Amino acid sequence: MKKFINNPKNFVNEMIEGILFAHPEKLKCINNDLRCLVRADKIKKGKVGIMTGGGSGHLPLFLGYVGNNLIDGAAVGGVFQSPSAEQMYQVTKEIDQGSGVLYLYGNYTGDIINFDMASEMADMDGIKTMQVLGNDDCASSIKGEENKRRGVAGLVFAFKTAGAYAEEGASLGEVARVAQKTVDNTRTMGVALSPCIIPEVGHSTFEIGDDEMEIGMGIHGEPGINRGKLMTADDTVVVMLDHIFRDYEYKTGDEAAVIINGLGATPLEELYIIYRKVHLTLQDKGIKVHRIYIGEFATSMEMAGMSISLLKLDDELKRLIDTPCDSPFYKQV
Amino acid sequence: MKKFINNPKNFVNEMIEGILFAHPEKLKCINNDLRCLVRADKIKKGKVGIMTGGGSGHLPLFLGYVGNNLIDGAAVGGVFQSPSAEQMYQVTKEIDQGSGVLYLYGNYTGDIINFDMASEMADMDGIKTMQVLGNDDCASSIKGEENKRRGVAGLVFAFKTAGAYAEEGASLGEVARVAQKTVDNTRTMGVALSPCIIPEVGHSTFEIGDDEMEIGMGIHGEPGINRGKLMTADDTVVVMLDHIFRDYEYKTGDEAAVIINGLGATPLEELYIIYRKVHLTLQDKGIKVHRIYIGEFATSMEMAGMSISLLKLDDELKRLIDTPCDSPFYKQV
Repeated sequence: MKKFINNPKNFVNEMIEGILFAHPEKLKCINNDLRCLVRADKIKKGKVGIMTGGGSGHLPLFLGYVGNNLIDGAAVGGVFQSPSAEQMYQVTKEIDQGSGVLYLYGNYTGDIINFDMASEMADMDGIKTMQVLGNDDCASSIKGEENKRRGVAGLVFAFKTAGAYAEEGASLGEVARVAQKTVDNTRTMGVALSPCIIPEVGHSTFEIGDDEMEIGMGIHGEPGINRGKLMTADDTVVVMLDHIFRDYEYKTGDEAAVIINGLGATPLEELYIIYRKVHLTLQDKGIKVHRIYIGEFATSMEMAGMSISLLKLDDELKRLIDTPCDSPFYKQV
Repeated sequence: MKKFINNPKNFVNEMIEGILFAHPEKLKCINNDLRCLVRADKIKKGKVGIMTGGGSGHLPLFLGYVGNNLIDGAAVGGVFQSPSAEQMYQVTKEIDQGSGVLYLYGNYTGDIINFDMASEMADMDGIKTMQVLGNDDCASSIKGEENKRRGVAGLVFAFKTAGAYAEEGASLGEVARVAQKTVDNTRTMGVALSPCIIPEVGHSTFEIGDDEMEIGMGIHGEPGINRGKLMTADDTVVVMLDHIFRDYEYKTGDEAAVIINGLGATPLEELYIIYRKVHLTLQDKGIKVHRIYIGEFATSMEMAGMSISLLKLDDELKRLIDTPCDSPFYKQV
């Protein structure tokens, strides 16, 4: 295991300490619990709160999107583990400004169980909550079973749109509607070239040949839909976009936001070679790229690989995608 | 070689095509040469131009810092190869607004030869140029032989300060003075855990054991000062900062800007664990961290490893480091 770490047991807490040392004006923990993070600035009275939560090992996901015009708080779990319901509840109480809190997170069983419990705890305090689950990974279950799909990088679109809308003063129901619309309009396909190592486990999450790639693999190493020989960048894009377009229809004239997301070890050079083919393919189909995000948005530590996310935009989503935002990990001007 | 590429021969040009597709409002190429890149917006009449140049494989370096309040153009070479003097000259002509052009680049022989030639070509056109070379890598030659040192991630500080100063309307001599002061006040130490592969070569640039690290290795795999067993994150930081502090004196009360730079494959989680110890160490020495940059600023494709750069600040450099800036690869608000 070749990592810059100290004791594997301290991996998550030392990472968060580093983040809080680096960005004290942006992020703070509450109740002396490093796993309960909220915005350091004052949240507007009456603003709907938005929180997320999930396992560590995916930076900038999840805590990296806590910021202005984004989300207000995050509960942080161990590597690939859900945070506790209690931690979610503590963040809920902290960010609620009297108008309720949206739970916006990825569709994973452990997180769902804990957010459900947190929601009940909040309810007893008279804090209204709603839940929207990211399930953009269209490799993870067949069409018609969208509710079984995992949430991956596309969740960032929902942080962006729901975050901007909440800041505008929208009600909880309205913020949830926009988050759900964003999720419903988003499709992601991923591909992995190499595994990662969970620090406390100490060995690779899976094995893959030197000449192999796995299309559709999840960000925790969940099995994909096809393992085969490494293809060229262009052929890889064609296969991935074909899958997305079979799942979600685009017509000439549609507009999209695009994320080309590195899973951790893939160089920026390669992500731009990928984007080149994505751009040409969308252009051929008459789809206009309204906004493009290229870099690392939802990773799996040192996993090599990438994902492509497309969000179909309407006028409302375009406006919200274009709103400036600012977190230590993502700035849009 | 496990990369998302097509033909290795097209690696650089396809990467740049992807960049130009993604950021047409920010970057453009001139003379139909993808290797000659300048700002897409109009440069202010009379503003001193700043350009850089160097080999590919280091994104966001070099072209990623072309942007508002940063630099105006970049000549782009093959992977780890200098661009040509002619390409540098073309960029020079394009960005000159009558007040001359600063060449701000890393201290590598090939780049120096070509920038010298470009400078002569510009001179014949009546365009005044000056040169400032980044040589922040204090592992690459002993104290007293700073002119033999390589330029690495610390060069970004000079893009930031010189870029902000040029935008304020400073003269060529003044911009060069600030760039040189920034370089003189910057020290970087790097450490590598794994090699990278040049696409057209197809095999690793060097070999390193599964339990080894090399401190002081350059971003092209140049030999470092110590290869040994993998240390903990904290011990690694102690060794690296010791080297920096032996080379450049800091006193209690000094203020610094810090870059924790990932070399390509190192996860953000580990960079924050590194920063945690950097922060604690600087705090112990009474050094105030004025601004912190954590992420990928100067990489070596899929090399695992990181570097630590410190810039000692005075009031002038603080002001210039704090100026907002905006390029597709780096935004400061």
